[in-house]
Amino acid sequence: MHAYRTHNCAALRAADAGLTVRLSGWVHSKRDHGGLLFIDLRDHFGITQIVIPAGSELLAIAERVRVESVLTVTGDVVLREGATVNPKLPTGEVEIRAGTIEVQSAAAVLPLQVAGAETYSDELRLRYRYLDLRRDRVHKNMMLRAGVIASLRRRMIDQGFTEFQTPILTASSPEGARDFLVPSRNHPGKFYALPQAPQQFKQLLMVAGFDRYFQIAPCFRDEAARADRSPGEFYQLDFEMSFVTQEDVFATLEPVMAGVFEEFGQGRTVDTFPFQRIAYDTALAEFGSDKPDLRNPLRITDVTEAFAGSGFGLFAKIAASGGQVRAIPAPGGGGRPRSFYDKLNEWARGEGAGGLGYITFDADGAKGPIAKNLEPERCEAIRTACGVGPGDAVFFAAGPREGLKGMETIKFSGAVRTRIANELSLIETDAFRFCWVVDFPMFELNEDTGLIDFSHNPFSMPQGGLDALNFQDPLTIKAFQYDIVCNGIELSSGAIRNHRPDVMIRAFEIAGYPESEVEARFGGMLNAFRFGAPPHGGSAPGVDRIVMLLADEPNIREVILFPLNQQGEDLMMGAPAEVSEIRMKELSLRTVLPPAKPVSGATSPVVPETNPD
Amino acid sequence: MHAYRTHNCAALRAADAGLTVRLSGWVHSKRDHGGLLFIDLRDHFGITQIVIPAGSELLAIAERVRVESVLTVTGDVVLREGATVNPKLPTGEVEIRAGTIEVQSAAAVLPLQVAGAETYSDELRLRYRYLDLRRDRVHKNMMLRAGVIASLRRRMIDQGFTEFQTPILTASSPEGARDFLVPSRNHPGKFYALPQAPQQFKQLLMVAGFDRYFQIAPCFRDEAARADRSPGEFYQLDFEMSFVTQEDVFATLEPVMAGVFEEFGQGRTVDTFPFQRIAYDTALAEFGSDKPDLRNPLRITDVTEAFAGSGFGLFAKIAASGGQVRAIPAPGGGGRPRSFYDKLNEWARGEGAGGLGYITFDADGAKGPIAKNLEPERCEAIRTACGVGPGDAVFFAAGPREGLKGMETIKFSGAVRTRIANELSLIETDAFRFCWVVDFPMFELNEDTGLIDFSHNPFSMPQGGLDALNFQDPLTIKAFQYDIVCNGIELSSGAIRNHRPDVMIRAFEIAGYPESEVEARFGGMLNAFRFGAPPHGGSAPGVDRIVMLLADEPNIREVILFPLNQQGEDLMMGAPAEVSEIRMKELSLRTVLPPAKPVSGATSPVVPETNPD
Repeated sequence: MHAYRTHNCAALRAADAGLTVRLSGWVHSKRDHGGLLFIDLRDHFGITQIVIPAGSELLAIAERVRVESVLTVTGDVVLREGATVNPKLPTGEVEIRAGTIEVQSAAAVLPLQVAGAETYSDELRLRYRYLDLRRDRVHKNMMLRAGVIASLRRRMIDQGFTEFQTPILTASSPEGARDFLVPSRNHPGKFYALPQAPQQFKQLLMVAGFDRYFQIAPCFRDEAARADRSPGEFYQLDFEMSFVTQEDVFATLEPVMAGVFEEFGQGRTVDTFPFQRIAYDTALAEFGSDKPDLRNPLRITDVTEAFAGSGFGLFAKIAASGGQVRAIPAPGGGGRPRSFYDKLNEWARGEGAGGLGYITFDADGAKGPIAKNLEPERCEAIRTACGVGPGDAVFFAAGPREGLKGMETIKFSGAVRTRIANELSLIETDAFRFCWVVDFPMFELNEDTGLIDFSHNPFSMPQGGLDALNFQDPLTIKAFQYDIVCNGIELSSGAIRNHRPDVMIRAFEIAGYPESEVEARFGGMLNAFRFGAPPHGGSAPGVDRIVMLLADEPNIREVILFPLNQQGEDLMMGAPAEVSEIRMKELSLRTVLPPAKPVSGATSPVVPETNPD
Repeated sequence: MHAYRTHNCAALRAADAGLTVRLSGWVHSKRDHGGLLFIDLRDHFGITQIVIPAGSELLAIAERVRVESVLTVTGDVVLREGATVNPKLPTGEVEIRAGTIEVQSAAAVLPLQVAGAETYSDELRLRYRYLDLRRDRVHKNMMLRAGVIASLRRRMIDQGFTEFQTPILTASSPEGARDFLVPSRNHPGKFYALPQAPQQFKQLLMVAGFDRYFQIAPCFRDEAARADRSPGEFYQLDFEMSFVTQEDVFATLEPVMAGVFEEFGQGRTVDTFPFQRIAYDTALAEFGSDKPDLRNPLRITDVTEAFAGSGFGLFAKIAASGGQVRAIPAPGGGGRPRSFYDKLNEWARGEGAGGLGYITFDADGAKGPIAKNLEPERCEAIRTACGVGPGDAVFFAAGPREGLKGMETIKFSGAVRTRIANELSLIETDAFRFCWVVDFPMFELNEDTGLIDFSHNPFSMPQGGLDALNFQDPLTIKAFQYDIVCNGIELSSGAIRNHRPDVMIRAFEIAGYPESEVEARFGGMLNAFRFGAPPHGGSAPGVDRIVMLLADEPNIREVILFPLNQQGEDLMMGAPAEVSEIRMKELSLRTVLPPAKPVSGATSPVVPETNPD
């Protein structure tokens, strides 16, 4: 018989009755029933009930061990009788009558309980993460994550992609967030950087001719923690393809995403592909966001015309000054009590808006403060435009149309759309709705300088190529750049890359960078493109976000095995930590501590900030 | 028709003749044949011949583009005729008669050629790695590596393992090589460390109950480059299992390794499993190495007794002083000319030995300088012990038996074994021979201090557990520690871990560490083991080494996509690099450059070393 187990703790069934078996696992719980002692023995796979008969000499051992001790139990499989059968457990028809018990590891008193649903502080959970990970929900999340990643890999390989490992000790990115740095011992004063993403390497792989690359890629950004972003490291399904159009990229990723969400969605609805394509301008107009949540059925309408020259002075003035009035329908919102509208108005003020105007519709027509001052035919035009009827309402977001202020108006209309749908419980539940947002603008006007900037990614291919750059108003040029969005959450940006040095230099010229500066900053990439570069494109959906969506967890730490805390610390392993003088000297470094922050009530004087040089 | 390709460059066959197709790829070569121009168009998949008919207006384009330019060619598939069929190419029966050619990317003059077998310096290859990677051998190595890793993953998952990502920004390892450090911006003066291996995390995963973990794990060591070790980062197939014995670990890894070597061995012989288990002591005795190369048929024999009190004074003296004489058979080595033995003698002196004694055997008996002074019955005893006969020879390695000097004797005998087998062409070719080296000693005597040290890994479980530690001579205690060796190359160490705090504290006590120090240095791990730890063990075969063996490449850089050079630099991306003062200030760091090394002939005085504090 094996030293530790003949079966795992989820394996035994009624048909196994009579077998002599050996199980190993953790003491999940103990129950004393009139002399008999029951132990729920738990391992990775499940739970099996152990029974220690009254009068057994094993009782002394079993009574002594605390929960979460590790035991090896040898005994006979016996059928449970009548009411003692537990239909909730796959092993619930049997139990093991213990013959011998070996204590592999005796547990001390626990800082947090594994069984049960008690909640604990993040600090306690992370400090004892190895106990926290034994808890059912956390354990399931980690297995979900592992399953999702294995499935992503399999699906990408099935689509002809090859996984390559790109360097982790590399050079600083020319653009983007803050890098983590790694001092070089052999090159004093110089540093490696951890990759924010393998962007340049994956493009070089295409230049090297590898056709279809992917990687479950660790990425590193020295940024503050957010609910959806772990401080430090995160993972992307990074991929890139050669000789493809934007539609090829979509057609490649869609079955992967749909497939994974189907596989792990536990019956939740998943969009069939092709996913909806929504132009960036349309997304802003209809959804008030470049990350449309398609579970929300509401669509925003521009009703500026209906207010132009109207009796409702506030909006008429906005229309006259070139502003915009955007209408958000609220189906079924018409018959709500006054408090409903007051609460929304208060919320809108909290969001920085002047308030939240509305019209309600009943069988007699339009009602409410705005309708009082608005001609009935204009009210009717709004009702028609918004596709609502008696019993419904329409809310308004009004403000400037152009520039950053115009974007604020749009985003506020999007916030109203979300808020209204939530208030009226209109958001589809148990569904994953995907879309591609496409046709992002290549350039935008910098209102401060009056000059043209890149909107998003300077390395995307402009639609229309060199001709567009040479002959088209830059502010009308779109890029072959796209986002994939699920339930209003951006999973990834992506693009068809600009693989032509001449097009890149012209694009940078429009954004105000002379060729010499482009060569100085991005020369490595440009040079590579000068030795034969294929047209290529890709994307990099965030793995952690995919798992968060599937696990329905709002915090990214719930889907990471050993996450850093909000302060970027690993409380269990003790990182970051001070290092020895010897190490600092090897690295040719000295710490120059910033001035101590004054502690309330402390007597130490405030040290003036010193410049490390 | 697709914008870039209807087929890849390896797809077309005779049956496709008549199709109009579009291909994209790199100009691998151009050949002018009396007005016709032939282009070998290459992509990731293969090569297809393009023909541009004499008189075609496309000739101007085709003549202008340099090799490695990227073209999209549209044209008709036509059968090649008679002698122009190329049986070496899968597409060799057809060619494309070009109708249109679009230049996607015009290549500049190349710093290194992709076609052909010219060799280039490492510096040039790494600086233009994206060109080097297009070359057939390098391209194949990378695809092999990717295939091996995907296969390892699949095989591990099939065996019930789950892949988890352990942290990359973590704490310094308590033992081992030098860590790479990452300064923390938010915790001035503190550093993260990159993992040398996820050892602690994988053990914590077992404590957390995950049963079977694996990871293709990036590992980082700040060590000098070697042929078989990349500076910076490398990858391991890291795995760990709960509730297992040493034999379970072997039985798990064996089909994975045998399977991968079969799959990618291209017909080379692969050992069937179970692989041979060789005790550490036996490995030293018979192979003169703890990394036995089983392709070498020679076995070493201890023939000290045959020389004890003999007429061959040198070895008799060694035997009398408690030393050892080890015999290495040389089948077929008997009839060699004197120069053969002289050359080996010279080699042995180069290795630091006094020389390399030998006896040759012919039909008349033993011959040579040693045999002259050694009694015939002793010569015969040696012949029998070594299993040789007429026409063969035996070489001798003699020296002290005990301690470090004894190990030198043993290792020299192993070097002789390798050398002789090479000289006589006895090493099996085209084979992968595996073994497990087991029963490593837990402790060893430190000759300098006279005290007992750990031999290898203090965290392995001693055979016999607490009882052995309490009642056995420590120097006789073996550990559940093992290496897997292929063709004399250690792929990995591994162990059944010590999961019991009491056993660990006692083991450290024997090695001279008081409990307080063990708690201070390894408290995190010990604490985890106090809340219920399963018996567990694992290993971590080096992925790069596996690929090196399969690719038959002696240098690890040949199996890594973007390796650092010997000096730890990325010449292509420019890493490591200086960082801005702003970044240094954010990180609360100042560089303290070491004193400049005096340059020969330079006039600058030698700056005395300064302590950064």
